[in-house]
Amino acid sequence: MALDHGDPGDAPSVPPPLADIADTTRPSAAEEARTLVASTNIGTLASLTPDGDPWASFITYGLLDGSPVLCVSHMAEHGRNLAGNPRASIAVVTPNAEADPLASARITLAGHVEKPSEAEYAAARQAHLDGVPAAKYYVDYGDFSLWVLRVERVRWVGGYGRMDSASAEAYAAASPDPVIPKAAGAIDHLNNDHRDSLLAMAQTLGGFPDTTEVTCTGADRYGLDLRVTTPRGVAYTRAGYASPINSIDELRSATVELARRARAAH
Amino acid sequence: MALDHGDPGDAPSVPPPLADIADTTRPSAAEEARTLVASTNIGTLASLTPDGDPWASFITYGLLDGSPVLCVSHMAEHGRNLAGNPRASIAVVTPNAEADPLASARITLAGHVEKPSEAEYAAARQAHLDGVPAAKYYVDYGDFSLWVLRVERVRWVGGYGRMDSASAEAYAAASPDPVIPKAAGAIDHLNNDHRDSLLAMAQTLGGFPDTTEVTCTGADRYGLDLRVTTPRGVAYTRAGYASPINSIDELRSATVELARRARAAH
Repeated sequence: MALDHGDPGDAPSVPPPLADIADTTRPSAAEEARTLVASTNIGTLASLTPDGDPWASFITYGLLDGSPVLCVSHMAEHGRNLAGNPRASIAVVTPNAEADPLASARITLAGHVEKPSEAEYAAARQAHLDGVPAAKYYVDYGDFSLWVLRVERVRWVGGYGRMDSASAEAYAAASPDPVIPKAAGAIDHLNNDHRDSLLAMAQTLGGFPDTTEVTCTGADRYGLDLRVTTPRGVAYTRAGYASPINSIDELRSATVELARRARAAH
Repeated sequence: MALDHGDPGDAPSVPPPLADIADTTRPSAAEEARTLVASTNIGTLASLTPDGDPWASFITYGLLDGSPVLCVSHMAEHGRNLAGNPRASIAVVTPNAEADPLASARITLAGHVEKPSEAEYAAARQAHLDGVPAAKYYVDYGDFSLWVLRVERVRWVGGYGRMDSASAEAYAAASPDPVIPKAAGAIDHLNNDHRDSLLAMAQTLGGFPDTTEVTCTGADRYGLDLRVTTPRGVAYTRAGYASPINSIDELRSATVELARRARAAH
């Protein structure tokens, strides 16, 4: 994971952990991308005009595995663009924008579009309809075509300083995180009712023994994101479950185990 | 105003008015575009990679008159793209997406980017900061540049079947509508407390004497958008003020005058 640039301006510098973080495993860029693209049905297409100029336009999509399936009219500018040149990319932004928009997660999926083959047409059509139910009104119109974006390259930006690329292979092999889209209630519960457990996690497993305050800022299949306040400043760390979980239903027992392990290490 | 395609699928067909609509004036595509671009600070940039491929990426912007001002890092892919080729476009979607995303208004502003000249640098920098306050942390970093999109062509889509283009000149000459962004409360008030007045407007000024139900769906500097239900089906019409208004404070007296005129015509 590379930094595109340094800390923003006069923001305070981030203190390092004082001990090893027990488990830093978190979703890969490919997993983050698969999760983000599955979280909404709207994005922005970049296509090429007949002059080779880049054309940004709003689109809706469904997903055939991780490949966006578009349904656009030949009479619309981006429909003509795709028919003229298949090079394309799609940007998707996390639906719940932060107050600071550059803190939002977003991805670019780049590649080329193809009309679905005869063998995959029915699945591509259904994938679009599953993602965009209103498409039932026009999906079979003669002036509309389905296009599948064959993803060749993925760029993920998780917010300030969190960014990475993923290959087509990694993107295809990854699956959307089953916990992230459903974790909001559990995160609130942890922050409201289990501050002591989060504090123990940050102080032991998280590598920040001088943590004075802690907030859980995210949960995924591998563990919890923690924002810790220390006398040295604010930092982010992780608390990893004993093993990855496969559904939101497993989150409670995974965090109970985390809390027990963190207290035992105190 | 052209239709890109016909009525969506099995949606009911739209009945025509039975009398002239007194005043069909509504914001032009250029005005709609200026209003939409001023309503948010986030969009998607389409730029060109070194291979000439289209690259869609999330951006934030401020506005120098109607020209988006970006602040991007040379180390980010889109920053390198703009430095390599100035051709660019930006898509902006209305922030409050409808349940059916294709019913949302959106625009594409296409042209090329330039670094602001020395004479306009301070204004461009301030425009970006006004639009994106968090940019204060990085706007003066050495790896960030300001870019002004010189708009050459505008494409506006207002939802299903409402779409138009605007020239660079029309876009530059237009101004954001002063009523649209602040009208939600007044529209609720009209719909909740003045149904009889809206009904009179639809039946007389709106050209649908057989209106049985009506909802105000929008208000701008020129008049009200009305959705009318008739025994023949659902349609949309307008009720235009006696003269354009310049602020939300004038909306009440303009609609009182509209109601009086509609009742007099009964």
